[in-house]
Amino acid sequence: MAINANPVRGTRDFLPKEMRLREAMQSVILDVYKDAGFQRIQTPILEDIERLNKSDGGENLSLIFKILKRGEKLDLTKENLTENDIADAGLRYDLTMPLSRYYAAHRAELRSPFKVIQLDRVYRAERPQKGRYREFFQCDIDIIGDPTNRAETELIHTTAKALSALGFTDFTVRINDRRLLTGLITSSGFAPEDVSSVCITFDKLDKIGAEGVREELLAKGYDPAAVSAFAEKLLAGDADGGIRDLAAVGALSGCPEAAESVAEIMKNVEVLAGERFRIVYDPSLVRGMGYYTGTIFEIASPKFNSSIAGGGRYDKMVGKFLGEDVPAVGFSIGFERISDILSEMQEAGEPLPFALGKPRLALLYDAEGDFAAVLGKAESLRKEGYEVTTVPRAKKLGKQFAALARDGFAAYHIVGEDGIKQLTVKEE
Amino acid sequence: MAINANPVRGTRDFLPKEMRLREAMQSVILDVYKDAGFQRIQTPILEDIERLNKSDGGENLSLIFKILKRGEKLDLTKENLTENDIADAGLRYDLTMPLSRYYAAHRAELRSPFKVIQLDRVYRAERPQKGRYREFFQCDIDIIGDPTNRAETELIHTTAKALSALGFTDFTVRINDRRLLTGLITSSGFAPEDVSSVCITFDKLDKIGAEGVREELLAKGYDPAAVSAFAEKLLAGDADGGIRDLAAVGALSGCPEAAESVAEIMKNVEVLAGERFRIVYDPSLVRGMGYYTGTIFEIASPKFNSSIAGGGRYDKMVGKFLGEDVPAVGFSIGFERISDILSEMQEAGEPLPFALGKPRLALLYDAEGDFAAVLGKAESLRKEGYEVTTVPRAKKLGKQFAALARDGFAAYHIVGEDGIKQLTVKEE
Repeated sequence: MAINANPVRGTRDFLPKEMRLREAMQSVILDVYKDAGFQRIQTPILEDIERLNKSDGGENLSLIFKILKRGEKLDLTKENLTENDIADAGLRYDLTMPLSRYYAAHRAELRSPFKVIQLDRVYRAERPQKGRYREFFQCDIDIIGDPTNRAETELIHTTAKALSALGFTDFTVRINDRRLLTGLITSSGFAPEDVSSVCITFDKLDKIGAEGVREELLAKGYDPAAVSAFAEKLLAGDADGGIRDLAAVGALSGCPEAAESVAEIMKNVEVLAGERFRIVYDPSLVRGMGYYTGTIFEIASPKFNSSIAGGGRYDKMVGKFLGEDVPAVGFSIGFERISDILSEMQEAGEPLPFALGKPRLALLYDAEGDFAAVLGKAESLRKEGYEVTTVPRAKKLGKQFAALARDGFAAYHIVGEDGIKQLTVKEE
Repeated sequence: MAINANPVRGTRDFLPKEMRLREAMQSVILDVYKDAGFQRIQTPILEDIERLNKSDGGENLSLIFKILKRGEKLDLTKENLTENDIADAGLRYDLTMPLSRYYAAHRAELRSPFKVIQLDRVYRAERPQKGRYREFFQCDIDIIGDPTNRAETELIHTTAKALSALGFTDFTVRINDRRLLTGLITSSGFAPEDVSSVCITFDKLDKIGAEGVREELLAKGYDPAAVSAFAEKLLAGDADGGIRDLAAVGALSGCPEAAESVAEIMKNVEVLAGERFRIVYDPSLVRGMGYYTGTIFEIASPKFNSSIAGGGRYDKMVGKFLGEDVPAVGFSIGFERISDILSEMQEAGEPLPFALGKPRLALLYDAEGDFAAVLGKAESLRKEGYEVTTVPRAKKLGKQFAALARDGFAAYHIVGEDGIKQLTVKEE
């Protein structure tokens, strides 16, 4: 009797064609990152459960897949059993927390600043839905140990290059600084302890509009005068929020150095961007993660109306492991989002801006013949730049050619005959 | 206060230098496999717990990392709680079981025969020790849907090519067939139901010697006449076991077609091997996994006195998911073992037979200067084939050069000066 063969809910099997695209994407991204002097590392998928529970993961902490203790350590007879009694590890929900742990563990062996690539799996027990998976890839670059905004500049420049190489052009980098946001909120009359709650509401601007933000803040019971002052600064003007003059924001927020830093990053990135993309100061950019301490940035693709990369500075996280703060900035590409977009382009027959590997050739042979000779012939065809698959020759060659073409083979050779012939998919 | 920053017991963080080697190894292996017409797939690390528990994993089933149920599904108040009550998934312990599930789920979308690559993580909660990890990489190629021994021939040829490309030469492929082994055991007078227990003992030949095997079989209470007949066939002669004449083994085992198949595979592989490696029939080759049904094979490196690859035919596993048997053969490279061997060579200063990526160049700049111009210069150096890292120029340049050289940089350029200079590690 057959048993259920579907992958675990919310996880995916990748077919050869899907894998070919994902591998090509990874290779494009890694080439850009490595050329830019970043070095790849890898950490385990398992992390200590206490470390995960104590980390800055916000709502991700409720989405951790937990691993059962094993052997004698697992006591299921204890009264009032809790999850903490029976789990000792969990699957990581992102790559930033493991990176901070890694840096603390290996600092003595790493360059400073440490420019690092991570491209790997993470896990979140979310309700599965279109485009949201329980096992998915994240693709991050981080610079640890550089307090200057050269780190931000290099991360934005490099991430934008990777996106261009993946075929994304004409996008906008939005930039803000948590210190400016905090200053604008407190200078409106909110208490410092209310900043994060105000930010949570403000982050919904795209969805609920300026009026919605104002109503929600009032509904939360904040002083109407503070809400009005805040609205005047950040909800006036166009839909993206009000005030745009960085010098004015610097003065209002009480943190002119943050405004100068944002301006300097924008100036340097603009020089490098040329006509390829734009960078704009966006006072309404919040970014959800609780751990950001300074600059934050995000890239949206207008063509696909979605965020395709995001990041920021998190100067306090490494310190949780090391006992000493170390400046850190990261930028993450939305690998799954981009993979979905490129798959759709591929299905629609649009050309991809990068190669999906070598052309594939089918080497058709007579099953009754000398197989060592067939493999010898395959070797010589591989030297001509093909991925060569040996295939027993079918009786109905026309049907076989059509099937091979549909399966992505670019060419064939029949053992004993002359030359390499091209294959093309025929409309049926 | 700092908290423990070590990775979970039995798992590893990979430093940039280690990762560079592992990535280069992966790239060498994948190039050979893809050129040979195999296609990469990926399956989730999580598998359904029932599927794992019912699978043919032998003792690996006791080493599964289990995942706690979540939300309402987790009831810790139930009486006489068992692991099955509270776990709904587990981490896969190998790549063969997920591949069988995958094939059953996606058969209609896959070519037949399906030539597939998997290079990915697996998990076993073993007691950690040198060279044995709880999270490690497996590297498999499999051919599903080919009942002929062309599948074995192609797998052995391709795996041997990958090992050669990794710098392993002069190795021996040992080959046997489970049907021959079974025939030799039952024809000695053992009952069919005793075959696997006899195999478990016979598999210890390397460790306990012929006399040890004989003693253990007698201690297990088997008929001394059967043990003697078995010893005469398989423990006589040299240390590797007795009988070598395949035609004779075919007749004795009552399965001449298995003997002919092994002989044919050997003949074809030998033609392709040339002087690079040898293939020998080894009647004492058992291979532990319970799921093999026909040919089995293993590659040992004499230089490192260890097995570096192994595999065989498993014609019954896909059927467990599909409800219909599908022939299958796989060959797995010992990725971690080989990585350990190559790391040791690297540490000893021995040259590796493959490149570890592009040369790395440090671009030294004045921190007070124009950073956009520095990044512009970096771009032009990247076009010359370097991975370029921007580095603020230190006051003591000599010390900085020495540190960069130790860190693996091949060259440097100072912004504003002429030319690219080479760096070499100086003995201290």
